[in-house]
Amino acid sequence: MDKSCINVGILGWGTVGTGVSKILMNQNSLIAKNSGTELCLKKIVKRTLPATRQGVELPMDCLTTDPAEVVDNPEIDIVVELIGGVTTAHSLIKRAIQNGKHVVTANKALLAEHGGELFQLASEHKVSLNFEASTAGGIPIIKTLQESFAGNQIHSLYGIVNGTCNYILTEMHERAVDFSDVLKVAQDKGYAEADPTLDVEGIDAAQKLILLIALAYRSNISLSQFHVEGITSITQKEIQYARELGYVIKLLAIAKLTDGNRVEARVHPTLVPERSLLANVGGAFNAVCVIGDAVGPTLFYGQGAGEMPTASAVVADVIDAAKSVQQGVSSPISQAWLAGAQAEVGVCPIDDIETRYYIRFVVADRPGVLAKIGTILGNWQISIASVIQKDPHGMETVSLVMLTHKAQEKNMKAALAEIYTLEDVKDEAQLIRIEEEVDF
Amino acid sequence: MDKSCINVGILGWGTVGTGVSKILMNQNSLIAKNSGTELCLKKIVKRTLPATRQGVELPMDCLTTDPAEVVDNPEIDIVVELIGGVTTAHSLIKRAIQNGKHVVTANKALLAEHGGELFQLASEHKVSLNFEASTAGGIPIIKTLQESFAGNQIHSLYGIVNGTCNYILTEMHERAVDFSDVLKVAQDKGYAEADPTLDVEGIDAAQKLILLIALAYRSNISLSQFHVEGITSITQKEIQYARELGYVIKLLAIAKLTDGNRVEARVHPTLVPERSLLANVGGAFNAVCVIGDAVGPTLFYGQGAGEMPTASAVVADVIDAAKSVQQGVSSPISQAWLAGAQAEVGVCPIDDIETRYYIRFVVADRPGVLAKIGTILGNWQISIASVIQKDPHGMETVSLVMLTHKAQEKNMKAALAEIYTLEDVKDEAQLIRIEEEVDF
Repeated sequence: MDKSCINVGILGWGTVGTGVSKILMNQNSLIAKNSGTELCLKKIVKRTLPATRQGVELPMDCLTTDPAEVVDNPEIDIVVELIGGVTTAHSLIKRAIQNGKHVVTANKALLAEHGGELFQLASEHKVSLNFEASTAGGIPIIKTLQESFAGNQIHSLYGIVNGTCNYILTEMHERAVDFSDVLKVAQDKGYAEADPTLDVEGIDAAQKLILLIALAYRSNISLSQFHVEGITSITQKEIQYARELGYVIKLLAIAKLTDGNRVEARVHPTLVPERSLLANVGGAFNAVCVIGDAVGPTLFYGQGAGEMPTASAVVADVIDAAKSVQQGVSSPISQAWLAGAQAEVGVCPIDDIETRYYIRFVVADRPGVLAKIGTILGNWQISIASVIQKDPHGMETVSLVMLTHKAQEKNMKAALAEIYTLEDVKDEAQLIRIEEEVDF
Repeated sequence: MDKSCINVGILGWGTVGTGVSKILMNQNSLIAKNSGTELCLKKIVKRTLPATRQGVELPMDCLTTDPAEVVDNPEIDIVVELIGGVTTAHSLIKRAIQNGKHVVTANKALLAEHGGELFQLASEHKVSLNFEASTAGGIPIIKTLQESFAGNQIHSLYGIVNGTCNYILTEMHERAVDFSDVLKVAQDKGYAEADPTLDVEGIDAAQKLILLIALAYRSNISLSQFHVEGITSITQKEIQYARELGYVIKLLAIAKLTDGNRVEARVHPTLVPERSLLANVGGAFNAVCVIGDAVGPTLFYGQGAGEMPTASAVVADVIDAAKSVQQGVSSPISQAWLAGAQAEVGVCPIDDIETRYYIRFVVADRPGVLAKIGTILGNWQISIASVIQKDPHGMETVSLVMLTHKAQEKNMKAALAEIYTLEDVKDEAQLIRIEEEVDF
């Protein structure tokens, strides 16, 4: 099929949808020059018709409240799903695919839950299902993993993929303010939702990790299979001790291929060396480090959210889909995921991982406490690399901060359980994993 | 055409060729899983047959000295050109294209000189000509500009694209050694060629900038059209003063869209803010910052050279070409360049650029010198932001270091010419441009 103009319909006209419509209306000739493809924005579905055009010059009759005018419209070649949520988006995308339309979505929650089924369906109907904007916004990490690194065995990847958490941690680091105070500012500025749970508890990062792992390891894993830990318990004390030890705390989404051909998958606050590029990714920005066996260490940095950066990624997907329409072929982007249905790689349980740890104990300021803790750790094969104890003498309790050498998580858990039985240990310890491999 | 196996021939079995053959032989099933494409390495051309197989298990009769066995071989679908140089590579690539073969090359010098002609030829023969490995090695910057940022007007780009220069400057910065000493070590370690001219004079970076500009601005420019300056005149004094002022010196390849719809193109040592990500790209690594109107600031980091990182990019191109073979379509990668034949954007002469400057004058240690220089700069609308003069009093000459606010290059040249007529000014000044926009 050699159509002179490829017709696009958008489901949802919120922040990102508005950005996509702006690019499609204002940069039409640029896109044609860059890609040889002319895109026509035909329809935008919004639940209630807006009073204004939100600063975009739209064609007549473009806006509608009826999704059928996009997903069932024979004129539409490409459907862009930007309504978010799972249930409605799921059924509309299925209908669009069944109607032979290529689909572009930024919906990580939907793909993390129903990706396998939707990619199977897209494959059966020979259409593409592109999702660059679902992870790390404007950073082309999906295409990079899927295409540019296709000749690599991915050794590991480390992502700062939640801008809200990175903004909060950066502010805590640079302004010495507490989590709850920064969260409030972030909410006022629109960097955090009124209900910030999905972000600050690590769920959003975990959904993105699922997509990255599907591409890097052809493995379709679910949220319940791996360790997810947010940033709500990080205090200013942790930030300060980490800095003193030469580290910065970042919420990382981590995937690693282990010796036994399993994948470590985890989301948690992590100490990264302060001189590393990853430690210097500040504010609401995202970055993903990928280490491949051939390409070696790489890092990709950019805005992970927001109207225009996300729209940039959506439009790139639309252009790819348009080329598929013009050439009459389905995009191969879905193949990795599909192959994941027969995944050879399983998830490595968190208990089996080996890593270095930062531990802060709150202990009674009495002689012998360090020795008791050190003995228990030693009994569990956990070796201490450094210790800080510097709260003023005479307080009832003091912080005892340790960095360990590499240890097994299950040994750490067992050691902590034993340490918690000591009378002198006052609270649960703060346990933060350390990653040295990102030291570039 | 739905071929079960796509046949690949390689011209040149040096460092990168060996890396490509390793990936094609050892990661065959990984590639098939990642991309749905089975690649068969059929032929490798080497000028003289090697005594060993260089650690790669090659199929029987794979090695040959006759390029015709690749470029004229009807069995071969994809030709990978890795012999380097311009003349022979040029004629072999033309022959391969004319024979209907898709071509992958890492040859930046060839493309910078004959890109327009070769992409035109590829378009006529409906084959792809992919060149990801030509710029920034394993970093997928070509695909990113061409595909992922196709909906963006590129505001500017800043690249550390020569690993040799970055290694030398990093060592000068971290170990306080002089240029010539580091160059010798770099040559011993294999980071620099015996004749390092192309690298240290900025020519290699300039060739890569030509390719980046072709993609970002659809403009086919030539080496003679823009300012290219290497790092040979950078002394330890510049490194130290820059550090004191909060900057690091990097060799940057810079492109910017100006107001008048022209492109600034230049390669020169540049002061970048020391806390920026770009300043922290150390050793032989490369990085490219791209700032797009929609996506905002981005950075891509990785190894810009070496056997396996470059091979990673070549193999990605081979996989893309293989998909084109399977789907019977030509790759669209050449379109931007082709459109460049009708480029709307011209090159902005260096005299017209506006930037901040670091200037180090060597002057007689006499009263009034600073005032005389300051007056001349002021007469040319150049305003001084800060001054350092701290060589011990009593020396015959002292260094006078200034940072200016933004000024026009032609004014700076005129002012310097006037300043050089002052009796108290002993040498040509060290003039280094400053970029603040990369402060992320």
